[in-house]
Amino acid sequence: MSRAYNFCAGPATLPETVLKQAREEMLDWRGTGMSVMEMSHRSDEFLEIAETAEKDFRELAGVPDDYAVLFMQGGASSQFATVPLNLLGDCPTADYVNTGIWSTKGIAEASRYCNVNVVASSASSGFTTVPDPSGWQTSDDAAYLHYTPNETIGGLEFDFVPETGDTPLVADMSSTILSRPLDVSKFGLIYAGAQKNIGPSGLVVVAIRKDLLGKARPETPTMMNYQVMADNGSMYNTPATYSWYLAGLVFKWLKEQGGVAAMGEINRRKAAKLYDFIDGNDFYANPIEPRFRSWMNVPFTLADDALNQDFLAGAEARSLLNLKGHRSVGGMRASIYNAMPEAGVDALIDYMTEFARERG
Amino acid sequence: MSRAYNFCAGPATLPETVLKQAREEMLDWRGTGMSVMEMSHRSDEFLEIAETAEKDFRELAGVPDDYAVLFMQGGASSQFATVPLNLLGDCPTADYVNTGIWSTKGIAEASRYCNVNVVASSASSGFTTVPDPSGWQTSDDAAYLHYTPNETIGGLEFDFVPETGDTPLVADMSSTILSRPLDVSKFGLIYAGAQKNIGPSGLVVVAIRKDLLGKARPETPTMMNYQVMADNGSMYNTPATYSWYLAGLVFKWLKEQGGVAAMGEINRRKAAKLYDFIDGNDFYANPIEPRFRSWMNVPFTLADDALNQDFLAGAEARSLLNLKGHRSVGGMRASIYNAMPEAGVDALIDYMTEFARERG
Repeated sequence: MSRAYNFCAGPATLPETVLKQAREEMLDWRGTGMSVMEMSHRSDEFLEIAETAEKDFRELAGVPDDYAVLFMQGGASSQFATVPLNLLGDCPTADYVNTGIWSTKGIAEASRYCNVNVVASSASSGFTTVPDPSGWQTSDDAAYLHYTPNETIGGLEFDFVPETGDTPLVADMSSTILSRPLDVSKFGLIYAGAQKNIGPSGLVVVAIRKDLLGKARPETPTMMNYQVMADNGSMYNTPATYSWYLAGLVFKWLKEQGGVAAMGEINRRKAAKLYDFIDGNDFYANPIEPRFRSWMNVPFTLADDALNQDFLAGAEARSLLNLKGHRSVGGMRASIYNAMPEAGVDALIDYMTEFARERG
Repeated sequence: MSRAYNFCAGPATLPETVLKQAREEMLDWRGTGMSVMEMSHRSDEFLEIAETAEKDFRELAGVPDDYAVLFMQGGASSQFATVPLNLLGDCPTADYVNTGIWSTKGIAEASRYCNVNVVASSASSGFTTVPDPSGWQTSDDAAYLHYTPNETIGGLEFDFVPETGDTPLVADMSSTILSRPLDVSKFGLIYAGAQKNIGPSGLVVVAIRKDLLGKARPETPTMMNYQVMADNGSMYNTPATYSWYLAGLVFKWLKEQGGVAAMGEINRRKAAKLYDFIDGNDFYANPIEPRFRSWMNVPFTLADDALNQDFLAGAEARSLLNLKGHRSVGGMRASIYNAMPEAGVDALIDYMTEFARERG
């Protein structure tokens, strides 16, 4: 078939122009006679690719100079251990906010290394809201406070950045990074698995305020030591070079779109259009408190679950792919990251309109 | 330029047919309307890609059924920590053989988790030989014995598999995996960073005898726990899907070449040709004891180091790339992995002949 609209939550759709450039350069990058994936990571050519990608990421995300940017491996799930191993120091406690499945996973892993104080949880609401920060029970001595700005599975997104005073703020930005403007200086550390808004899976981008480096616990594997990664420009060993290159192509594309300010406007519009449609049609529903609805992941249910299979089959016939919701939530989920064009959202709404009319 | 002969030690050259297929499938894998890197790792399409790759690897490498095959991230350097964290159990000691720079790195990392007993070292010879196993000082109670069958930097390769009795044998196969037949049943665990004989960097393939699973220390990050990876088909989180796919294409290519028996013959011939030339020409030299010369990485020096830059410039002008030796060794190094065609070795020898005649 021709290119489909792929609503997968991750690995997710990539900009077509990025894939075309990667195709074009697959056997011979700019006259070198090599694919990027065949280059020494220490070659001038690859270093240029790597440094340009970092520079573009810093510019796009607005990463201040006193932050190190790292290109690591192992996905956000590895960061669930890497964060406490590096940031706890001698401190026995870390604060976590629980707003869904990914928060819960982060908490479980951190609990293996320290006392996790869950400052607030929206579990009792079925994770349909963000707990009001005025009621958060923070520790006096937490090494950091961790939260998940966007819950990919639940479709719940913070519309504010928590204030934590002197306690470093840490965020799993996997599914929201670069989707709207962000004041990185409010954070001690952010990390993001690449496979949603950055590039292919197998890469995780970290920005860490430099004063937080150098506190890794003795048992920290060297490859998980932020200080070692920072000192070696993320090349203590061979990094995921091809993924880094593809991330760089995505960053270039984002700059061409106007950066995160422009993307934020487009993403706000895409999400509003889809939620407005869902709210205006009795056949579909989304359970999240409107203020905290994710711009990136839009779960929705049909009025009758018995129609789910038909809905998915009809969508697939129109090249609207991967709309099945996560097994823990059920129903449908449309992930509409940066690379999902507005036309894809329009096509989805057209299909949903027709399906509701015919089967609702 | 057209495709060059790329002698890089890693990331290394890949089969041109593999790159062409990847190029062909970049925007649309078999009519799905998606690139492989855009597919859900839990989709039927990707599971087929992943399972086929594992099956082909098992067939090529001859991995017995009582071994788990894992597709992990973080490179061999992550395995330097992952191995002791998973295999030590309550045992305080592990045996290591030191035959060069990569052995040394593995020893340094393991020393952070246990008492490392270096059973033998060829450091005093400048790592130009493999210590005679009759003199190895093994521990009575080692959790395992680790060695590096091929030292990528030194160009030193074991021509035998050590006998360790009941002690599990562990090997960093990064630069020798699939290059010649191997009896995997002699090993407790083998691992290999992909970027030499398997595919792009950012992927590491592990084969572990299943009775060695389940002994991870409490501080082991979940993403480094072999048992967790085995239980989840290497998909506890999102794996490096595109690298896994590319590895699968390389495995298909290897099968088309006749598998590791055929590759072993070709590799033996390629290496013999190059070493015979070096030995027969006073201008070039290789320091390794002939029996232990690597089939994969061929370091060599010129009679006069002052000519190194001219040699490299002349090579590059002929599209013979990345021949500069590792900074710790100096001189030149030609890495001639599976994907380096014999014609590339011939072209290198032609150039070396001419250079020695003109400048020697």
